[in-house]
Amino acid sequence: MRETWIVGAATNRFGRMAESAREAAARVALEAIDRAGLTPKDIDHTFVSNAFGMAEHQGHLGPLLNTALGIPEVPSCTIESACSSSSAGLHEAFVHVAGGFADAVLVVGAEKLSHLDTLTATSYFATGADFPFETRNGATFPGLYATLASAYRNAFPLPPETLAQVAIKNHANAALNPHAHFQKEISLETYLNSPIVASPFRLYDCCPFSDGASAIVVAAKEFVRRPTSTPLVVAASVRTGSIVDMHDRPDLWGLPASRRAGELAFRAAGLTPKEIDFLEVHDCFTIAELLALEDLGFYPRGAAGAATRDGETARKGRLPVNPSGGLKAKGHPVSATGVAQVVEVFEQMNGTAGARAVARTETALTHNVGATGGSCSVHIFRRG
Amino acid sequence: MRETWIVGAATNRFGRMAESAREAAARVALEAIDRAGLTPKDIDHTFVSNAFGMAEHQGHLGPLLNTALGIPEVPSCTIESACSSSSAGLHEAFVHVAGGFADAVLVVGAEKLSHLDTLTATSYFATGADFPFETRNGATFPGLYATLASAYRNAFPLPPETLAQVAIKNHANAALNPHAHFQKEISLETYLNSPIVASPFRLYDCCPFSDGASAIVVAAKEFVRRPTSTPLVVAASVRTGSIVDMHDRPDLWGLPASRRAGELAFRAAGLTPKEIDFLEVHDCFTIAELLALEDLGFYPRGAAGAATRDGETARKGRLPVNPSGGLKAKGHPVSATGVAQVVEVFEQMNGTAGARAVARTETALTHNVGATGGSCSVHIFRRG
Repeated sequence: MRETWIVGAATNRFGRMAESAREAAARVALEAIDRAGLTPKDIDHTFVSNAFGMAEHQGHLGPLLNTALGIPEVPSCTIESACSSSSAGLHEAFVHVAGGFADAVLVVGAEKLSHLDTLTATSYFATGADFPFETRNGATFPGLYATLASAYRNAFPLPPETLAQVAIKNHANAALNPHAHFQKEISLETYLNSPIVASPFRLYDCCPFSDGASAIVVAAKEFVRRPTSTPLVVAASVRTGSIVDMHDRPDLWGLPASRRAGELAFRAAGLTPKEIDFLEVHDCFTIAELLALEDLGFYPRGAAGAATRDGETARKGRLPVNPSGGLKAKGHPVSATGVAQVVEVFEQMNGTAGARAVARTETALTHNVGATGGSCSVHIFRRG
Repeated sequence: MRETWIVGAATNRFGRMAESAREAAARVALEAIDRAGLTPKDIDHTFVSNAFGMAEHQGHLGPLLNTALGIPEVPSCTIESACSSSSAGLHEAFVHVAGGFADAVLVVGAEKLSHLDTLTATSYFATGADFPFETRNGATFPGLYATLASAYRNAFPLPPETLAQVAIKNHANAALNPHAHFQKEISLETYLNSPIVASPFRLYDCCPFSDGASAIVVAAKEFVRRPTSTPLVVAASVRTGSIVDMHDRPDLWGLPASRRAGELAFRAAGLTPKEIDFLEVHDCFTIAELLALEDLGFYPRGAAGAATRDGETARKGRLPVNPSGGLKAKGHPVSATGVAQVVEVFEQMNGTAGARAVARTETALTHNVGATGGSCSVHIFRRG
């Protein structure tokens, strides 16, 4: 198995895009390739994610993207796994490069929904859940994650301010991130004055609908151009699945797919949670960050809330979590999210994270979840 | 690189399904696994294709399928590349097994559009083309392929009966195929009396909208259970791309992605077209079969029509082409098509093709195109 590297990375500012997902995908792809010190002609495979392409009447995005890059002959396909789509694309790229089937693979995620009304956009998001058993009966993701939050809090009581602290921390980080959708801090008062969306969630417990695009180049060692940037070694690339329907799971105190992915990834990397310097986890709702920290083994079950209140997961804390602002405040353009987490790791390890830089950047972990955990990707990176 | 095999295969009858794509996917998956002499617990990765899942409000199909199979923890993702979606899934499975990342991979394609009105179904199909430059300006696939047919006929004149002969041959094959959407022969008179759809195409030049599902199991040698079935060796698995927009291509006498895929596949397999016993090619319209035969090197440019009129490509001819009936008559449930071509090869090589059996089945080729050739997959198989 060949050592596999992330050699370039780029993202646009999440929020509202005037351009199409296709145009944004091409723009960030060129930027990522350029940062790698490569040209499009070096790319020999492309994986693109655009789960809600139907919202722009566009499928078959790979050849359109490659044509825009001047490499129409390069093979491609579109990878979907709900909110973990582009991290699934990264896993395919890893397999191609590590297995010697490709030398430099482009992975792009792009999404645009802001031209739709909220109800239609919600109906696109909801396709990640089980339509006949969940969505058709009225379940939406705020409701499903609120159920997870309620089940967790019944077993492991949390004062209400704990969820607020996750939101306040991630907004504080996003305020320093020029790529973020919400570049503003929020106070506890703002949080507590925001409306209930799905009990126990207030508005500020929920990630926004965002447009966005992000791209990385995954390559073999000979494509590493050190003078241009500090590349990252992919120490582990793991995908897992789980029962989609929450009503069929044995417990709701975490996500089985995250637990399994964490175990497998640490085993593959030969590392333990204590050896990870910072992480980007899938905080589509505030509770999800706490579940992730416990599922991945960073804290015992029931302990992530206290650690958050104590500031351990703040940007300057012992274990910075979501220094980008996370899905919660950086934004969540579904298919762009998984790759964007890796872009954050790339920028932190390259010293280009500016005001949101964390102290130690030798190792990092990214955790990206599909829907309520039907699928999960965990990647571990070492600075190359 | 490990030798990679197709150890099980199954398809349902194409046409109209009462059940959902998700239910059909699970049904054919179980059948393919069973034919392989395996159980779902042997599967360690799943690739599913369902390009138009939005028509059933359902994305994130991999974990739903794996949950139905009793293996929710197994990783999965959905692969889209327009009409070549599930052959792209097969390519990913090949890379995982050949590279040693997985031992037994399930590849499933399923599609259901029959519950939609024709205009809505057409709008789903059209997402495989370039929306701002083709579809939004009124282009649909019959019109785009009719343009290819006209350009070809301007350069290489064909009597009108040549396209008819492709349709008549493929309907004759489908009449013997219990999986086919149209299990009836057509006469030249029927063809000539059918309405013009997009000149020069009549109704019988065009494949139908079909529902359908198909599944294969791709595995390493130790998962070959010979007593159950004759497995197939994957001698080549190639994906290519091309400029999507026909108006930007240097010529329209074939598909650049097919030419390149054919060359690369024959090189990988160490075979020449003369050594292939039969093939399944992407005949979404009659002209497409002629283009494929020339693009893949089976006939010089301009010669496939005469060979067809002479009966060379008939089931009992020198080179049987589309013994299943092809997309034209077996039907074209978009994401099920690529895998269904492999199911046909599996049944022919296993001697279970019944009345439609071809004479020689030591080697075979499958050719699956995305849209008007923006992407292409070519696979070559040897009987194991």
